[in-house]
Amino acid sequence: MPARLMHHTPLPVCSHAIRTCYQSFELSDEGGPKDQALINKVGNIYKHASTLEHLVYSFYLDGISRALLQELARHRIASLSVKSTRYTLKELVEERSFIIASEIFDMGRVEQYCVLTGNSKVDHSIAKALEELRGLKAQGISNDVAKFALPDAYKTELTWTINARALQNFLTLRTGKAAMWEIRILAYAIYDALPEDHKYIFDSCVTPREVTDAD
Amino acid sequence: MPARLMHHTPLPVCSHAIRTCYQSFELSDEGGPKDQALINKVGNIYKHASTLEHLVYSFYLDGISRALLQELARHRIASLSVKSTRYTLKELVEERSFIIASEIFDMGRVEQYCVLTGNSKVDHSIAKALEELRGLKAQGISNDVAKFALPDAYKTELTWTINARALQNFLTLRTGKAAMWEIRILAYAIYDALPEDHKYIFDSCVTPREVTDAD
Amino acid sequence: MPARLMHHTPLPVCSHAIRTCYQSFELSDEGGPKDQALINKVGNIYKHASTLEHLVYSFYLDGISRALLQELARHRIASLSVKSTRYTLKELVEERSFIIASEIFDMGRVEQYCVLTGNSKVDHSIAKALEELRGLKAQGISNDVAKFALPDAYKTELTWTINARALQNFLTLRTGKAAMWEIRILAYAIYDALPEDHKYIFDSCVTPREVTDAD
Amino acid sequence: MPARLMHHTPLPVCSHAIRTCYQSFELSDEGGPKDQALINKVGNIYKHASTLEHLVYSFYLDGISRALLQELARHRIASLSVKSTRYTLKELVEERSFIIASEIFDMGRVEQYCVLTGNSKVDHSIAKALEELRGLKAQGISNDVAKFALPDAYKTELTWTINARALQNFLTLRTGKAAMWEIRILAYAIYDALPEDHKYIFDSCVTPREVTDAD
Repeated sequence: MPARLMHHTPLPVCSHAIRTCYQSFELSDEGGPKDQALINKVGNIYKHASTLEHLVYSFYLDGISRALLQELARHRIASLSVKSTRYTLKELVEERSFIIASEIFDMGRVEQYCVLTGNSKVDHSIAKALEELRGLKAQGISNDVAKFALPDAYKTELTWTINARALQNFLTLRTGKAAMWEIRILAYAIYDALPEDHKYIFDSCVTPREVTDAD
Repeated sequence: MPARLMHHTPLPVCSHAIRTCYQSFELSDEGGPKDQALINKVGNIYKHASTLEHLVYSFYLDGISRALLQELARHRIASLSVKSTRYTLKELVEERSFIIASEIFDMGRVEQYCVLTGNSKVDHSIAKALEELRGLKAQGISNDVAKFALPDAYKTELTWTINARALQNFLTLRTGKAAMWEIRILAYAIYDALPEDHKYIFDSCVTPREVTDAD
Repeated sequence: MPARLMHHTPLPVCSHAIRTCYQSFELSDEGGPKDQALINKVGNIYKHASTLEHLVYSFYLDGISRALLQELARHRIASLSVKSTRYTLKELVEERSFIIASEIFDMGRVEQYCVLTGNSKVDHSIAKALEELRGLKAQGISNDVAKFALPDAYKTELTWTINARALQNFLTLRTGKAAMWEIRILAYAIYDALPEDHKYIFDSCVTPREVTDAD
Repeated sequence: MPARLMHHTPLPVCSHAIRTCYQSFELSDEGGPKDQALINKVGNIYKHASTLEHLVYSFYLDGISRALLQELARHRIASLSVKSTRYTLKELVEERSFIIASEIFDMGRVEQYCVLTGNSKVDHSIAKALEELRGLKAQGISNDVAKFALPDAYKTELTWTINARALQNFLTLRTGKAAMWEIRILAYAIYDALPEDHKYIFDSCVTPREVTDAD
């Protein structure tokens, strides 16, 4: 599940915005340590979070499930353009069956279309649903009707634009331990894809990743 | 698919807001024909649409599919609280099988959980997916994993709060002929559920319903 | 500076929205202690603040300065319809001079148009500016030009619609000790105008009022 | 009144967002004529305006009046960080009097602080108010009290971040003939400051400038 940063506003736009209020432009170090400390002080500590709205990030999020998309779209102060099943389900028409033997699926090919959970029973149900959907499309049923049989695991992708204030809210809620597992993974991937010099703005929002024996 | 209006702002709050600008309170007829004409003139004709934001509607939307929810949640200037599959999939644990004979499903019971499309092949796939999901829950698989096998037809419900300006945008896009069939039905149901004296605000946004032989 | 509540969403709409997620409608006590505790737990403690957006308040705010309006309008998740100086400055045309003797103003009449600060020097400057403005209007100068001479103390009024989530943010920032004195007074007046059974939602956002000897 | 563009999202981020929906990335010409036509078709003609939200502009707006700021701040889907009179009015402390003879002001120096209207009577009132304000500051009166005597003509500046969808709305309303003269000038200056290859997105929103004899 890659989260790829396509574009972002440079830090000095944000520090310039803050310095607008105080007319302290001559103290700027062009996004250096002084400007970074100012952004943290005013945007985070003083809670003038509106100054963080000048920082805008456009990500490309790929290989996420429609289950995750249902949660992602609830974050409403963000802009999203999503792969449309209404226009793209034809991708299944050219696929051959995912079945390789009685009740056995080619899970590698299933995973090209669906997010797998690691639970073999659930993944088997997902594979069955995908094969059903493929069959519906092979029979020429239109996307707008066939899509009602899509499993929530079906993969989608989107261009997602969000400002730093809304992203703080997203990372706070979605790296939290109560978050659904897949959106938690995505939230960390988004944090990792941020420009290095922007990450400190979000550090206090991110729940630490669990340390496991493997680490 | 009922759309039930739970609460709304009375019209005179909107006409009072407009009269604030001009300080013309003495011309008000408390939401009567003069106030209604003023709302239409300023909010619609003069395009000072911000005045329509004072009118807020809270609906309860029931029996819609998760496919529809994916589209509904894209309308971001609205507030939505949705039945959570993460907390409520246990409803399937107590269900007995939806199969009544080999490859035959009790579609009446399926329809309690899923929106049917009228296409028998698609509806059969939906029934299969529902029965799979029931089986996963019967085996005690947690909601957060089992939900990846949910079909898009699975029914959900939500409390939805939206102001008149955003609702105009929704009705314009979602009663249009390019809209997906289920959200089109919902859009008309929402319009029908509006208070009678508010409907005129939205009339120019609503694409006329098709007249059929049956009408 | 009265803040008058014109309309609000009843509490049960919010608790119903929360119960939508868990499908726990049968536990509702129609906005009673159980529903109130639920709103506090989910909206405030669990920080699912989107559930508070279903509660919407429309206030009429009167007798505030344009200085205050500059700050109020920065709260962007709210809807405001403001008395327009472009349409209403004619109110000064019919006024006679505010001067009652050399360099002496009728401050009672000045206060009908301007917020006074209690500092006699500033209030004197405000009175001078008001008298200048009256003179410009008496000479038939159009509002769109004369308005550039308006003092920030000039009174305005507005219809203001805001949801509970955004109002929490407003009360947190504007009852704080760093807030400008007039907006602090307004913030407390808004809190006081809330329905009694809604106030608890905001209690943790409001900085305690100072106790003075006079109290 | 310069409107300086500090940063903007490149066009290909928007066309990539649209191509996400259709998965037509291979048809892109990296922001060339094909991508530009696509943005216009989907964002403007089909009215899927959410795709335009991926384009974000950060401007620095300088030398505008507080009268204009009152209108600008009403455009709420934008982020603004404004020169704070609460922190910067000390700039007047070091000024000497603006009076050069009885009832005569040094209008060149007045114009450093205030937007002039071209109406000599109004400009005279503005100069008087500025001189009053200077006097208040020279006497050590705090900004939070003295600011109530600020004239609406007083100059301010801000960092303003807005997406293309909201900017279309701004340009539609504020280049219109009913708009206040100063915000109309600003609206055209903002349009002029847009990247050349972005302007076509806004062309249908901009009311043509009047041709005068002087042109």
